[in-house]
Parts: sequence; structure tokens; C-alpha cells
Amino acid sequence: MTNLTLALDVMGGDFGPRVTVPATLQALHLYPSLHVVLVGNQPEIDLFLTKAEPSIRQRIEIIHTTEVVSMSDRPVHALRNRKQSSMRLAIEQVRDGKAQACLSAGNTGALMAISKVLLKTLPGIDRPALVSCLPSVNKAPVYLLDLGANVSCCSETLFQFAIMGSVLCEAVDKKHSPKVALLNVGIEEIKGNDQVQQAGQLLQQSPQINYVGFIEGNDIYSGNVDVIVCDGFVGNITLKTSEGIAKLLVNQLEQGLTQGWFVRLMAKLIAPRINSVLKQMNPDHYNGASLIGLRGIVVKSHGSADQSAYLQAIILAMTEAQRRLPKMIEERLESILLDINN
Amino acid sequence: MTNLTLALDVMGGDFGPRVTVPATLQALHLYPSLHVVLVGNQPEIDLFLTKAEPSIRQRIEIIHTTEVVSMSDRPVHALRNRKQSSMRLAIEQVRDGKAQACLSAGNTGALMAISKVLLKTLPGIDRPALVSCLPSVNKAPVYLLDLGANVSCCSETLFQFAIMGSVLCEAVDKKHSPKVALLNVGIEEIKGNDQVQQAGQLLQQSPQINYVGFIEGNDIYSGNVDVIVCDGFVGNITLKTSEGIAKLLVNQLEQGLTQGWFVRLMAKLIAPRINSVLKQMNPDHYNGASLIGLRGIVVKSHGSADQSAYLQAIILAMTEAQRRLPKMIEERLESILLDINN
Repeated sequence: MTNLTLALDVMGGDFGPRVTVPATLQALHLYPSLHVVLVGNQPEIDLFLTKAEPSIRQRIEIIHTTEVVSMSDRPVHALRNRKQSSMRLAIEQVRDGKAQACLSAGNTGALMAISKVLLKTLPGIDRPALVSCLPSVNKAPVYLLDLGANVSCCSETLFQFAIMGSVLCEAVDKKHSPKVALLNVGIEEIKGNDQVQQAGQLLQQSPQINYVGFIEGNDIYSGNVDVIVCDGFVGNITLKTSEGIAKLLVNQLEQGLTQGWFVRLMAKLIAPRINSVLKQMNPDHYNGASLIGLRGIVVKSHGSADQSAYLQAIILAMTEAQRRLPKMIEERLESILLDINN
Repeated sequence: MTNLTLALDVMGGDFGPRVTVPATLQALHLYPSLHVVLVGNQPEIDLFLTKAEPSIRQRIEIIHTTEVVSMSDRPVHALRNRKQSSMRLAIEQVRDGKAQACLSAGNTGALMAISKVLLKTLPGIDRPALVSCLPSVNKAPVYLLDLGANVSCCSETLFQFAIMGSVLCEAVDKKHSPKVALLNVGIEEIKGNDQVQQAGQLLQQSPQINYVGFIEGNDIYSGNVDVIVCDGFVGNITLKTSEGIAKLLVNQLEQGLTQGWFVRLMAKLIAPRINSVLKQMNPDHYNGASLIGLRGIVVKSHGSADQSAYLQAIILAMTEAQRRLPKMIEERLESILLDINN
């Protein structure tokens, strides 16, 4: 692996440096070619660096700032008034070519707004989308976008998201002609709101996109399609609902298996197996969503991510940087958009 | 229990009379005071009645019709052109006072449109909402609405749904001042689209509603609130996503527990306990959503409901009829709306 540098907004998220710095140290241990720029309050960061070995410490650069984007900052406010924030300075590292990717667990709307202005979108793309890869019954990954960067989307935006999702799946999974679907309240053509219906019509006219029609919520995890498109309001709630129900199930199963001595004993004997299944289903295992459609790499971690979940997001950012994802998307996008416009 | 009559659109759903008639027979066995009007194709219905005992058979009336509302019929089309459909005739039974409730597993949009015109909405309510009761971590039921009857909702509609949900929870669960929340992409005031933000402002000005603010998808099943409000597009996808992820989890757990002889043996010994937990989480267990805000009772079963799931929906319709739910909602609604308008 060639050297690569990540810029990390260590102040973002519910826990700040307490989680982000130890997770970064773990990543530096695992990947000797990784370098990081930690952006945030230096004294707070230093607290968690005291025990770092010199070989690790020398791969860490710190950019000190005390300004942060808060979770309640409106995107426009953050863009105009948080010019020294840890989030913005981290994105600037990517813009200036000093880092190949940046990562934040902070305010999604602000991350989207600042990234869009600083890094610019790819040709033909109006708005970046937040995308993540979900597990499925048949083990094939499923890309869901948008996950909350755009709470309202017109049909043209959904259409662009579908193209980006398709290109991403082709590029990352080397999948030929990935199946693309629009998330809707029914599979019949008459179903849904205007945006979804019109986006469906646009996709039907796009020869390079393998558009398979509408898909319902209960089919997201079936693995029947590769890319699922929706607006950020629906996508965010869909993803978080999945996490909620997974937790409910785990909770009920744990309760069910701790009542009665016989069941408790048996459950204990197969606990590793049950735990391994539950771990696979743990949303933290899939932490990290990418803001695609930009000319640089921006990864969003869940705000509530713990150390191991944050590490997953770091690994995602590294993987995208190694693949030079924006370049891959740009090249494929160019050919698809040319084909549609002709 | 006093006698009550349900009108059943037996042709609706993926399986028609094959599922709906046997489930009805099961309900008639369980509830001696239940009478039913089966609306649909008589020869097809008769196929499943051949073995019914006389004491059961005499509590069944059949209204023969060959017309059905298809899943691809647009609501307006169904309303204007399906005047002899099993769905419409079943609703007419309620309108004409011949049945206390009706049940269909058919096209949701059509059910909503025909019910609205035939039964009318309650004073102060513009659009009926589809609502269902979900399980939660702390066992308290959670009402989620709308589940797909209204794919687009303005803030005023969301506001009315919140009032109806609150009244429903008060009426059915005898809960004082139930906690009402709006489903959103974040809990901060700045989050979400215009409709959700404006609905939040309306609710903040309503003294009789215990509005607690926004809630995220991962909190739906936590049991922290009693009523969750969203538009039908989001609600439908949220509910179906929950079903999808529950199936994925069950599937993975089953696979995980069938690999290796030791694990397989232990799993077999505690299978009843695992099965009882999984059964609790089975969406079929919660089948049946109510179209509230109407002057009559209309229950919607899942289209893919099997016999036991359809039976759950019948029991729901019976329960609402016994409680005279529309009357209960109307009385409480009147007082709340008076209070808001003054």
C-alpha cells in the first residue's frame, strides 16, 4: 500500500476526541502506510496521545482549532460562520491536496454544504449524495442513497443519484450492469409521489442504467437489487429504523435466552455463535457513509459511533482513497451522461 | 360480547379467498358472537366453505360480485369505475349500518379513496390516516401513522394525524397525555423538510397534545414515545423496512445456528425459546392497520398476509367495533379542536 493521508475532524460526533483519537491510533497501528492530520482542539487531542509510540506519533500531524460546527448549526450558517471549524479545516486539507480523504462524525447538513462549496461537484452532478453499503440476505452488498444529505429531492436529483449509485457499484464491486431500483410504497407503476414517478420515467430512458423499477422497504435487505435510490429524508429514516429494529431484536433475543436455567445454560454454550451473528447485524459494523458526487473524498461517520465503529469509517475512507473513487466515478459518469444527452 | 358483524372483502390481497375464508372460519370458531358478510366471488368462496359446520355457516352471509379492485388501479379510477367491486360493497355494508367494521387486504389507495367518499371523515379531519401498533423494547405499544394512505402530506395534515394518533392512544390504551413525536432525520429543531418543521410549530401551540419534538428512525422501537407521525411515503417504507430487516436477522440467526453439530444440537434444545422470540418479532403478528379519521371502521390487512396474519386483522377490526372507535375519537377530537381554535 502506498502512503496515504487522511484528514480527520476529531471534534465531530457525540464523543469527540475520546473516541476519534483512540480509533485513529488503532488505524495507525494496523496500517503502517497511513498518515493522519488530526484537526481539532490540540490540548484535548494530546490527552489521548500521551501513550502513542514514536513510530505512530510521527505519522500524526495536528491542526489546532477551537471552533466547531455544532449539531444545531444550520448548513448555511456553518458555511458562512465556521471558517476555522475542525470540519472545514479537515475538508480544506482535501481541497489543497494535503490529504486524499477526510472524515467527520459531525453535522451532516453542514458537512454536505461545506464539502460542496470547497470541493465542487463532478460534471453533470448538482448535489452530492450520502451513500452506504448495507448487508443483505444473499450476502451481496446493497448501496442505499441518499442517506440524509438532501432532505428534499426533485426527480432530476433522484435520477442523478441513481446514475452515481450505479457507477459506484460498478467501480467498487466490479459488478457489470448493477440493478438499480427506486424506493417506493409499492412496485406498481401508479404508486408513489411525483418525484419518484418522474425519476422512474427518466431512468427508463437511460440505456446504460439497468433500472429494474420500484422496490418496497421489505425488499431492501433481500439482495435482489444492487443500488436503491431515495431522497435523504426517507433514506435517513430507513437506515436508522433498521438500526432500531436490529437493536430491538437483539434485546428481545438476549432477554429470551436468559430466562430459565436450562435455556440459559444452552444459550451460554452457543453464545459465541449467536454473538457472531448479532455482531454481523450490528449497525456499527457498517459505519461510514460516503458523500459521493464530489471531486474529493468525504466520509461521514455516525455521530454515536464508538471506537470500533469509527475505525470502520477510517478504513472506508482509506479504501476510497486507494481506489481514487471520485476519478473512477467521473470517468464512467462522463460516458453515461454523453449517452443520455445524445 | 354482544353480537357484531364484520364485512370482509375476501378477494383482496395476494391470495384471495384461499386465505381470507379459512381465516374467517377460524375467527367464527373462536368468537361465537361474530357474524360476517363475505363479499366476493361466491363460487370461489364456496370452495372453502364446504366443511363449515352449520352453526358456523349460519353466521355467514355472502354478497356475490365478480368485480375487484386490482393492485394497479389508480384510486380515482377505482372510485369511479369499480362500483360493484368486493372492496366497495364491503365498505357500503358499514355505511349502511349492516356491519360495524370492514376489512380488506386490497389496494390501499383505493381503500382510502372509497372509504373517504362513502364513510366521510370526522369533523376537523381532512384525510384519514392508516395507523398501526408496533412492538417496542419496553413492551409499550407505539402507534405509527400514516402508513401509506397519503404519500404526500402538508404540515396541517401531519398536525391532524398527530391529534388523531394521540386520541387513539388515549382511547385504546387508556393512556393519559400520550407522548407524540414527529419522525425526522434529526432531533434538532433545524432538521427536516418544511412540512415536518411547520407541523412541529403547530403542535407546539396545542396545549392538549403532549408533543415531545422530533424522533429519529432508531428510536421508533425504543418505547420512548407513544405516537409517531410521518407522511404515508415515509411511514410505509419505515414499516416495510422493519419487516425486511427482521427477516434478514431471523435468516442469519437460523443459518448461524445450523452450522456445526454441537451448535446445531444446542440450538435444537433451545429452539422453542428462540422461536417464541422470533414469533414475537414476526410482522404477521402485528398485521392489521386501521384507517382512522373516518365515521366508520375500516381495517387494512397486509396484502401478503397468511391465514394467521389475516386472523389478527379480523381480531383488530372486532376490537375496534366493540370499542366504537370512531365515536371515541370524535368526542375527544371535538374538545381538542375547540381548544385549539379558541
